[in-house]
Amino acid sequence: MKPSLAKGTRDFVSLDVLKRRSVISVLQRNFELFGYQPLETPSFENLSTLTGKYGEEGDRLIFKILNSGDYLAKVNDQDLNSRSSQKLTNQISDKALRYDLTVPFARFVAMNHGKLSFPFKRYQIQPVWRADRPQKGRFREFYQCDADVVGSTSLFQEIELLRLYFKTFRELGIKIQVHMNNRKILSALAQYAEISDQLIDFTVALDKLDKIGEGGVREELKTKGISDEAIAKLEFLFDSNSTHEKIVQKLREIFEGIPIGLEGVEELDFVFSAFADSSDLVFNITLARGLDYYTGAIFEVKAQEVEMGSVGGGGRYNNLTEVFGVKDVPGVGISFGLDRIVLVMEELGLFETITAPPVQYLFVNYGSEEALKSLTIIDKLREHGISSELYPEASKLKKQFAYVEKKAIPYMVFYGSNEIENKELTIKDMVVGSQHTIPIETFFSTL
Amino acid sequence: MKPSLAKGTRDFVSLDVLKRRSVISVLQRNFELFGYQPLETPSFENLSTLTGKYGEEGDRLIFKILNSGDYLAKVNDQDLNSRSSQKLTNQISDKALRYDLTVPFARFVAMNHGKLSFPFKRYQIQPVWRADRPQKGRFREFYQCDADVVGSTSLFQEIELLRLYFKTFRELGIKIQVHMNNRKILSALAQYAEISDQLIDFTVALDKLDKIGEGGVREELKTKGISDEAIAKLEFLFDSNSTHEKIVQKLREIFEGIPIGLEGVEELDFVFSAFADSSDLVFNITLARGLDYYTGAIFEVKAQEVEMGSVGGGGRYNNLTEVFGVKDVPGVGISFGLDRIVLVMEELGLFETITAPPVQYLFVNYGSEEALKSLTIIDKLREHGISSELYPEASKLKKQFAYVEKKAIPYMVFYGSNEIENKELTIKDMVVGSQHTIPIETFFSTL
Repeated sequence: MKPSLAKGTRDFVSLDVLKRRSVISVLQRNFELFGYQPLETPSFENLSTLTGKYGEEGDRLIFKILNSGDYLAKVNDQDLNSRSSQKLTNQISDKALRYDLTVPFARFVAMNHGKLSFPFKRYQIQPVWRADRPQKGRFREFYQCDADVVGSTSLFQEIELLRLYFKTFRELGIKIQVHMNNRKILSALAQYAEISDQLIDFTVALDKLDKIGEGGVREELKTKGISDEAIAKLEFLFDSNSTHEKIVQKLREIFEGIPIGLEGVEELDFVFSAFADSSDLVFNITLARGLDYYTGAIFEVKAQEVEMGSVGGGGRYNNLTEVFGVKDVPGVGISFGLDRIVLVMEELGLFETITAPPVQYLFVNYGSEEALKSLTIIDKLREHGISSELYPEASKLKKQFAYVEKKAIPYMVFYGSNEIENKELTIKDMVVGSQHTIPIETFFSTL
Repeated sequence: MKPSLAKGTRDFVSLDVLKRRSVISVLQRNFELFGYQPLETPSFENLSTLTGKYGEEGDRLIFKILNSGDYLAKVNDQDLNSRSSQKLTNQISDKALRYDLTVPFARFVAMNHGKLSFPFKRYQIQPVWRADRPQKGRFREFYQCDADVVGSTSLFQEIELLRLYFKTFRELGIKIQVHMNNRKILSALAQYAEISDQLIDFTVALDKLDKIGEGGVREELKTKGISDEAIAKLEFLFDSNSTHEKIVQKLREIFEGIPIGLEGVEELDFVFSAFADSSDLVFNITLARGLDYYTGAIFEVKAQEVEMGSVGGGGRYNNLTEVFGVKDVPGVGISFGLDRIVLVMEELGLFETITAPPVQYLFVNYGSEEALKSLTIIDKLREHGISSELYPEASKLKKQFAYVEKKAIPYMVFYGSNEIENKELTIKDMVVGSQHTIPIETFFSTL
């Protein structure tokens, strides 16, 4: 049997792990500088905790875990005989792998509501799983790195999270733009143009404005069955030369009788005012994001120099813990997409200084007696924080040399019967090629 | 709906995460000092990769992932109608959560055989999942921290791994004993006493020698149907006052005609010779370990001062990659049980120095205008590596004070209209209770 990886998953060898670790350490440090505290939740949750939070498509993409034991014993006869996969799922699976970090966080907040002090700020760096079709930069197992704050409706939370994005990506060396929109604006637009059912179709089409032009967008909207009246009402959005200010002004006008729309515009405007001198935050009316739970600001982060979907996203949610029986815990959060960030940094050549953790000294193995004595020297080196190894077999020197070269170990140490007798070590510098013998004591005193 | 955790799983709040992180960092550093390189494998593997490697009981404890979509569509009619859970599993599940780190590592080695240079040493720190009945120190999701080396039969690998155990646990502050046995000895004993089918029953009973005494062990053996002849042949093991040397000597005698037994004794003896002056390595003839793949040395680590099952274990395996079509890759590895290690360290009070990452400065929020200006000061503090926050709402001072006290933030900063005009900050030391106003420049020059 030839083994393979499960679809959409990857192994991370030494260098990959170190790259990821270096990114995670930048994220961790910044999360903590902004006052977020670490949290980790289990990989799987009760299925009922996860379903119904991510929309229909999301529910389908949740990986369900088969119950243990005789899981068919109590299954409904009719559902079984009719081969209804959908109806059977809840009967043979009561657990599922987490789909994101936000819903488990909401579950945590609901469970520990009485013990937490609000506003409660947490960060979380863990893998999530989605039964998505794998493609470039999209995997079935990937890491999310989230910062969320709950128990506060202050727009300063949005402002702080955006600052966190900008500072962190700057330190990672990735030029980004954060696209921002507001769910309230989208709802109001749908209400205004009377296309509530087709809002997503509308934003999807509008998102292609740069690529297919105004004519193309109009055509796609018609294909999707959006009425000429609706298109006419919304055509002020088609002007790709329009400015943020102009659009906002127009929105204020058309939302005159739609309070939620005005609210959305005010929120957007206030957050923008905190980044007045930056062009890295842009208003993107086409940004909708699929997750059902967003109710206010929504964010998406695009890397500027590399073609790579979004490298982060987030938004405000007002009612996330309500489904768990706890009301009035509004929150807002952002996520960093570790896997795509690493891909972007690889394309930009930002990992050049990262190397595998090096073994400094390899001790030649002359046989059991010498080898056992070598181990006492190796112990001391390790106590000094220096990575060292004994070659495991008393093989021919040539083979031991080959190992040292392949692993790029800089020093080879000879501790044979002569050296043992004289309390010396012979050390060969593999880079320069030179070799010298020194007393063990001298060697350690120079470390 | 009242939310809950899935059975056997846990949330880790701030302090828990930091405790675990501190242990992981000790493990990581030591793994690298011994020349092991990091590897990470996916959380789930093809089901066929995992099944048949852990014995029947192990197979049952593997968490299987339900296929996506209409998973019943192609299921065998008869298996469905007969409600045969066991026969259906492979048809509706082709993935499973990893059960340990060793088999995924073997899969990795088999897949990358041509690219690796041997001996290949890797370490891996990741969660594993088992559908076990939860109890004290046993969870359904827990971390394993493994070091393995493959491509070498040298007993120096065993010796190095034991050194790694001793050094690491010493640094963690946990007194341990490593129990060692050898599968070859166990096989030979079973052969000698003609109880091959009942070897596990025998070792399980023998393991209770300290608790139930020789009489108790004899009784249990009889209950298990082990013959008087077999008991008579093995009764030299019942003497709890016997020494390691005496047992080894006796084993040599009885294994005269059983080469594999002699081999096991020689291996054991050689490894012990490297720890001659230590009482922390003990020969435990009752140690069997459940995993099917061990073929030579087996280890188990017991904490000395705390009652807590084993905090680590491992052993040698000769044929792990053979099931994946790659022969002759012998290996040996050990595992650290992170979760139990943390529990032991908590009981021993070894985490006293660990505190949540502290926010140093909280800026009072006087309203949007002052708050936005506060953020520019906060930005600078963060650039200096100092964790700082703005209180998100312009609430009454009393409420902002309460937040600072609850979160134990040492300094509260007042940056109101007066301070802004005079380019000053008023800083209140929450511990001492004193308060002073200083120019912003002076403040930053003293950081």
